[in-house]
Amino acid sequence: MPKDLTSFFYPKSVAIIGASRSPEKVGAIVLKNIISSGFAGKIYPVNPNADTINNLKCFRDTASLPETPDLTVIATPAGQILEVIQELGKKGTKNVVVIAAGFKEAGAEGEKLEKELIGVSQKYNLSLLGPNCLGFVNNLCPINTTFGELVNKTGNLRFVTQSGAIAASIFDWCESIGLGFNEFVTLGNKAVLNENDILQYFFNQSKKNTAPIKKEGLSGARPIGLYLESISNGAEFLRIASQITAADPIFILKPGKTLAGAAAMMSHTGAMAGEDAVLEAVLNQANVIRCQTLEDFFDLARAFSWANVPIGPKMAVISNAGGPAVISADAVINEGLELAEFNSQTKDQLAKVLPRAAGIMNPVDVLGDALADRFAAAADIVLKNDEVHALLVILTPQIMTQIEKTAELIGGLAQKYKKPIFCSFIGGSLVAEGEKTLNKYQIPSFRFPERAIAAIAVMWRFKQRRDKPEEITTASKLKFSTQPKKIKKI
Amino acid sequence: MPKDLTSFFYPKSVAIIGASRSPEKVGAIVLKNIISSGFAGKIYPVNPNADTINNLKCFRDTASLPETPDLTVIATPAGQILEVIQELGKKGTKNVVVIAAGFKEAGAEGEKLEKELIGVSQKYNLSLLGPNCLGFVNNLCPINTTFGELVNKTGNLRFVTQSGAIAASIFDWCESIGLGFNEFVTLGNKAVLNENDILQYFFNQSKKNTAPIKKEGLSGARPIGLYLESISNGAEFLRIASQITAADPIFILKPGKTLAGAAAMMSHTGAMAGEDAVLEAVLNQANVIRCQTLEDFFDLARAFSWANVPIGPKMAVISNAGGPAVISADAVINEGLELAEFNSQTKDQLAKVLPRAAGIMNPVDVLGDALADRFAAAADIVLKNDEVHALLVILTPQIMTQIEKTAELIGGLAQKYKKPIFCSFIGGSLVAEGEKTLNKYQIPSFRFPERAIAAIAVMWRFKQRRDKPEEITTASKLKFSTQPKKIKKI
Repeated sequence: MPKDLTSFFYPKSVAIIGASRSPEKVGAIVLKNIISSGFAGKIYPVNPNADTINNLKCFRDTASLPETPDLTVIATPAGQILEVIQELGKKGTKNVVVIAAGFKEAGAEGEKLEKELIGVSQKYNLSLLGPNCLGFVNNLCPINTTFGELVNKTGNLRFVTQSGAIAASIFDWCESIGLGFNEFVTLGNKAVLNENDILQYFFNQSKKNTAPIKKEGLSGARPIGLYLESISNGAEFLRIASQITAADPIFILKPGKTLAGAAAMMSHTGAMAGEDAVLEAVLNQANVIRCQTLEDFFDLARAFSWANVPIGPKMAVISNAGGPAVISADAVINEGLELAEFNSQTKDQLAKVLPRAAGIMNPVDVLGDALADRFAAAADIVLKNDEVHALLVILTPQIMTQIEKTAELIGGLAQKYKKPIFCSFIGGSLVAEGEKTLNKYQIPSFRFPERAIAAIAVMWRFKQRRDKPEEITTASKLKFSTQPKKIKKI
Repeated sequence: MPKDLTSFFYPKSVAIIGASRSPEKVGAIVLKNIISSGFAGKIYPVNPNADTINNLKCFRDTASLPETPDLTVIATPAGQILEVIQELGKKGTKNVVVIAAGFKEAGAEGEKLEKELIGVSQKYNLSLLGPNCLGFVNNLCPINTTFGELVNKTGNLRFVTQSGAIAASIFDWCESIGLGFNEFVTLGNKAVLNENDILQYFFNQSKKNTAPIKKEGLSGARPIGLYLESISNGAEFLRIASQITAADPIFILKPGKTLAGAAAMMSHTGAMAGEDAVLEAVLNQANVIRCQTLEDFFDLARAFSWANVPIGPKMAVISNAGGPAVISADAVINEGLELAEFNSQTKDQLAKVLPRAAGIMNPVDVLGDALADRFAAAADIVLKNDEVHALLVILTPQIMTQIEKTAELIGGLAQKYKKPIFCSFIGGSLVAEGEKTLNKYQIPSFRFPERAIAAIAVMWRFKQRRDKPEEITTASKLKFSTQPKKIKKI
């Protein structure tokens, strides 16, 4: 029976076992993060040697807590955890986060300890996250139980990651571009809760329609990014993921394709590598997008979060530079998209606002001396055309180019039209200032046009398969049905 | 007979026709750039309506110049240029830069004008760059004749580009990361001088050994980056490029692979697309590296400029995060490189400096709590091992990570060892500060580990083919020899 994780993600009270006054300690950082995330429920620091921490009354032990907390975060070392969990179980706590390392990943002794942890969790029916994890964030609650730098900004993204380090990198990146998210879950060793439990919870939540859609004009997608080194139960994953992708995109980075990668995960090498084909089939059938690189993962996070999914494959490109426009034309075709052919109305309108030497075909060349208003006038005309499903605006920093003003005007158009608008400002420090403005308007910008086009293509393929799954997935279904036993454990 | 371009790139005197006092005019910007580049020769502004510009005596016309300048930059509109060139030819000037647009690219009338330009150039045996170009920079002279933002930093890179806009983007990017170059040539319409003339000049220069090698420990490579929309004479290109790549890498971005790309270049579509296979064979035979994307181009510029070419395929990876280490192991294999297998000495040394829970195999996991000195100790041990030909250091910004100090210590190691050391600091603002330090030490850093590994792999393949061309190129030679007629015009 799937666990109901509502009280896990929306606790009314939270205890921090091992809360500390020493600022560098895990227990201190977790407590600080819970407080500064704006958590509105009750917070119970637990530490036998302190009366108050951060002006909060501190409790000696679990037994002395005035109520059974909805959630308990355990920030003590591995050796002390079993006893604490026993106590929590007896007290009736259902939701536990175990941060400490020193379990399965640490050899035979740790593996034994983890088995005991699982046993106690089953006995008391605990929803336990970890061990060996960074905790989780739910910006909708809000609560941040992690032992990492804080990202408070709400968005529509959700992340589930088996690597705390990748979480730390994503936090830093999200903060730098102003990308917000709703839930961020680090799974650690997945002793009890695994990705399927979290995905099931996300799916249940989306049915309740509680997640807010942030930006007017957004398609309402609540994208989910997964970084997984293993999948706990392939058949269950397929079932849940398929339900989610009927509405929302899931994109996954799962390394270990090669023997060396598998060896680096210290898994059974031969088996792992062989099973990648099965994984591929499962992902394909569930319309889950597989990222080939970490960069793909970051690119898609922003693209799906900030932009609408295009309703067709036809792109327009506007550029103040011929070279990158040519490169982009190649990339559009290579990615399986099309360059929209402008009708005479669009061409006439472009001819009116652009200089005679400009290119009014697609890609549109607004010429090197284009100021911001010329970029905007061309973009407005192109976006009005129903035959254009997505727009890429390319800017190179020429001596008269108004970089930030161009970004501002494109930002205004992104609010006017519901079509995906992507930008590629190519350069260094000068364009970085423009990118800041684009981030403010939640316009996905990519330093290189090919990456923008690749992201748009992935979005379009997702949309196409979501809307007509029967046409596309037949092939993968066949492939998949020949290997039923392999699916369970990918 | 190849032109001797020494006096073109190292003029002792330069005239600027159309020099202006209005700061936004091309003639004003070119003059300003020549002055501020530190040009040590004589500068002659030419303008009939001014006595002095920028405190320099101004001349009414070409005839009134006190000597025949080695180089003349023409910053007047297209319509006035033929007459000026006639005068220059009569006066004996050999080297001319024509910046104005309005020639071949602007339709039938412009095409006629360009033919006349070519006729006059041939009559007087002029080395003419352009028209429709941004000029050139030679930081070794030094002189900057461009109509763009200035990059004064000397390095060992050379660029030849047919797109002024791409030049502007590269200028901005070079400035932002502190990447210097020697020569930067924008070709424009290639009416007279084309890429082969410039490459021949580079080759002649390298034989003279005038280009300084900037960084101690560098392999002495003088990489050449090409952005070309067309190649003027494939056979000549093959001959010259092959000579250059016997020592130095050439990497090229040439769009127009697809019909759409070719159409965007307004060329003969069918022919263009068909000829791409011939181009591929020519590049392959000349050991010229073809970039698939603009991002590849930027990545290789930095990699070849700042790092030694690895002498073997064996890589080591050091990371404070398991996930990216696994991703990197996959990427190393996918790119045709190998993960070095550490001998017992290296493993023993690593075990001594790393905590018990750390991974002493390759990839080395220094753990999430690694401070800068632990990164450095592990890197030092790994670099000492002769079986390691290149090192990638991966950092994720965890709460205790010393990002800038780690960059500093890795920087020190890069000066100690001649092996290529690349970094991947994964994240946003926090790691950006570390990257600045890495740039200072000229360590190529990539936000994502796969890109670092891809660059190392390209360098290794280049080195392999350069040292044993006969083993590698046989296949491409065969392919190539079947299409001799197509080579001339790619």
